[in-house]
Amino acid sequence: MWHLYQFALCPFSRKVRLLLGEKGVGYEPVREYPWERRDEFLDMNPAGQTPVMVHGERATLLVDSVAICEYFEETVEKAAMLNGTAADRAEIRRLVTWFDTQFYRDITAPLLQERMEKRIISRAAPDARLLREAMKAAVAHLDYIDYLLDHRSWLAGSTMSLADLAAAAQISVADYLGGIDWKSHDQAKRWYVGMKSRPTFRPLLAERMQGIGPPPDYEKLDV
Amino acid sequence: MWHLYQFALCPFSRKVRLLLGEKGVGYEPVREYPWERRDEFLDMNPAGQTPVMVHGERATLLVDSVAICEYFEETVEKAAMLNGTAADRAEIRRLVTWFDTQFYRDITAPLLQERMEKRIISRAAPDARLLREAMKAAVAHLDYIDYLLDHRSWLAGSTMSLADLAAAAQISVADYLGGIDWKSHDQAKRWYVGMKSRPTFRPLLAERMQGIGPPPDYEKLDV
Repeated sequence: MWHLYQFALCPFSRKVRLLLGEKGVGYEPVREYPWERRDEFLDMNPAGQTPVMVHGERATLLVDSVAICEYFEETVEKAAMLNGTAADRAEIRRLVTWFDTQFYRDITAPLLQERMEKRIISRAAPDARLLREAMKAAVAHLDYIDYLLDHRSWLAGSTMSLADLAAAAQISVADYLGGIDWKSHDQAKRWYVGMKSRPTFRPLLAERMQGIGPPPDYEKLDV
Repeated sequence: MWHLYQFALCPFSRKVRLLLGEKGVGYEPVREYPWERRDEFLDMNPAGQTPVMVHGERATLLVDSVAICEYFEETVEKAAMLNGTAADRAEIRRLVTWFDTQFYRDITAPLLQERMEKRIISRAAPDARLLREAMKAAVAHLDYIDYLLDHRSWLAGSTMSLADLAAAAQISVADYLGGIDWKSHDQAKRWYVGMKSRPTFRPLLAERMQGIGPPPDYEKLDV
């Protein structure tokens, strides 16, 4: 049995969980707060970040969400998420990096810092200016998603791919933390409601981070 | 013919160039300074970062160093750099992320900011405290490389892999900017001299960034 070290609002763990769900890979979630810097966790991953996956007494240890997704894409045929030609796969991977890096840096990371870490770790007040900047960045990112969907059915092409899972993972955490305003982004919203409706997404949306509640529309499926 | 948009001290372009060299893929380098934010470059990559590769009037456009490396690993059999079992490949990819992300964030990025951007863009004096912190972080990273080499011939296992190329690319830029002190890191140094000696590495070491020279030992091959 696989164990997945993660916490409810880790966007990279959510990407992995969406992939495992689509592929039908069973796992036991283990709650890990990376900011506690537990010695046992740092032994597994010196980078100190979730997600980490372990199978059978550390016979197999998988660290880093990109490495984990590639691993299951290579070993489980069901629900291939890196489809098409080598160039198609390059476009999927470009967008995975885009959401893992740019979206995370501009939106998810500042929201997690201001609305999660400051509430449950340092007990400080959030910085209103940083929150405004993150929400402004979210508008630009939703514009880009609208633009991609002008030309394609899914973010990276004609079929659902790891790019859609990476994007939905980041957006769902930003949405939980009140950072997403769907106004004037009908295309992006329709795509995201489609992602939210997937059976693999429902359990994630039902989870709560202790001490922090999501806005009322977070789980809703009507466009 | 492939065109590679890059600049001499871009560590991610260096990783790609090392891979292309090992695989014997020919390309024309095109100098691109991402901080100039040229419209034509942003059209190719909205993230505004090097490297980007283009083949034949944009028939194929590859963006992001991870996507580019996976593309050539998939399409060119020679000099496979993601070898072994799925778990071995996960370990290689973990270390690529480690050097691309942690090493870059702690060492290469602050050195590039303080010793390159401040000299050629903002013409400000470098911040001595940030430089000291980067050099302290470099010692910890060299310790980790020593630790890996205690157990393995190469960073990710028994054969050279993309992890070695990613590490050598970051280290070579940090070394150019005077951020690496090899004292008490004989194992890491021996490994790096081995990397430097490769025919694919020599042309990179011969390049200079306008206005910034490397330290005297930068190109030397004696341990």
